[in-house]
Amino acid sequence: MIFRQLFETDTSTYTYLIGCQRTHRALLIDPVASEVGRYIELLDSLGLTLIYTLETHVHADHITGSGLLRDRLGSKSVVHRDAGTLCPDVLVTDGVLLQVGDIELQVRHTPGHTSGCMSFVLADRVFTGDALLIGGCGRTDFQQGDSGTLYDSIHEKLFTLPPDTLVFPGHDYNGNTVSTIRQEMQKNPRLGGGKTREEFIGIMSQLKLAYPKHIDAALPANLACGGNPDASVPHG
Amino acid sequence: MIFRQLFETDTSTYTYLIGCQRTHRALLIDPVASEVGRYIELLDSLGLTLIYTLETHVHADHITGSGLLRDRLGSKSVVHRDAGTLCPDVLVTDGVLLQVGDIELQVRHTPGHTSGCMSFVLADRVFTGDALLIGGCGRTDFQQGDSGTLYDSIHEKLFTLPPDTLVFPGHDYNGNTVSTIRQEMQKNPRLGGGKTREEFIGIMSQLKLAYPKHIDAALPANLACGGNPDASVPHG
Repeated sequence: MIFRQLFETDTSTYTYLIGCQRTHRALLIDPVASEVGRYIELLDSLGLTLIYTLETHVHADHITGSGLLRDRLGSKSVVHRDAGTLCPDVLVTDGVLLQVGDIELQVRHTPGHTSGCMSFVLADRVFTGDALLIGGCGRTDFQQGDSGTLYDSIHEKLFTLPPDTLVFPGHDYNGNTVSTIRQEMQKNPRLGGGKTREEFIGIMSQLKLAYPKHIDAALPANLACGGNPDASVPHG
Repeated sequence: MIFRQLFETDTSTYTYLIGCQRTHRALLIDPVASEVGRYIELLDSLGLTLIYTLETHVHADHITGSGLLRDRLGSKSVVHRDAGTLCPDVLVTDGVLLQVGDIELQVRHTPGHTSGCMSFVLADRVFTGDALLIGGCGRTDFQQGDSGTLYDSIHEKLFTLPPDTLVFPGHDYNGNTVSTIRQEMQKNPRLGGGKTREEFIGIMSQLKLAYPKHIDAALPANLACGGNPDASVPHG
């Protein structure tokens, strides 16, 4: 398996390239529009054909590259059925198995940050999007966010994975790249050490986060798979 | 590849079982509710795990087995995004590649019999549902049917396949099992020998078909993936 963790600095977003060495097929998780040229160069240099782009959710902070990649490479955009986007090629739900060459991803519906959030389990690792971050989690104060729902998702769909499962998040703002389910169950300040649902809801209600800087451009663009020409955020 | 063409006599429906010998994973195209026990026995006897059930469209003549198979085996129901069903696990669109073990199916959107009809191309064969039948085609007089649309689908999405491509239809009422694209382009009474769009529309408008005997039970049940307990057609 070919695996690359890619970082977009403006919004601290992680994108994951996963390729099958036998079939030379690949997928991207959470591509960013402004980085599409870089992805295409990387795919070319590795001799990979992009089959799917997978969105862990409708992002509020950056514009997805899935529409541009579809236009340029013919890849298909995969989102959760509850995401509410206008233009997906494939809609999936909890428990669905997606296969690209020898790569197998299992979908886990992990709502709470948004209603259409999903995580992807691939062998010894899980891609958690904004449901579970390293020492944190996605905010729950807009886009159908709900702290109780997020707590349930994390406990039922992620903390039930083997403790050594590698956690690859959708963002990190502190230079962290990877964690494990065990580490998050023990150390995550919002969840770790067996915090109750009520404690988690209380913590989330006190975050006092700023309004996301790109949300007014990113949300309408992402609901159109990144293809909104009126979006003010560059998506070269 | 394991391949079985199965026949349900009440509605002359073909169901296809396709299995991967390497991974022991399988899919079913257009399972019929009343035959689910037979499918499960067959899967067991072949040592196969059912991953997907694929619906070429929302059937008006029989109740799909996809809901029962999901309940009993955990398989996921795949339909076209335009099919309008209430409960699919995976929704797909034209050009999407679906993989189960070493089996690869390409989705072709072939509307006209219904708006959500699709065909599946697998190597040297195509599963055409009710878009193209052997020496015939699906009717176009209900369920968003449109003869011009069906003509375009058949010409653009099916007759562009290699002429030797094997055609496996969703029904046959005359004991035929398989045809080829070449044969249908030459001999199909409604389409063959280069019939024009206008000729086809004229033929379709003169068919004077009876009202489908199970449609009032089958349509609502199939819009709910076969799981409608009020359906009067047996689906044991």
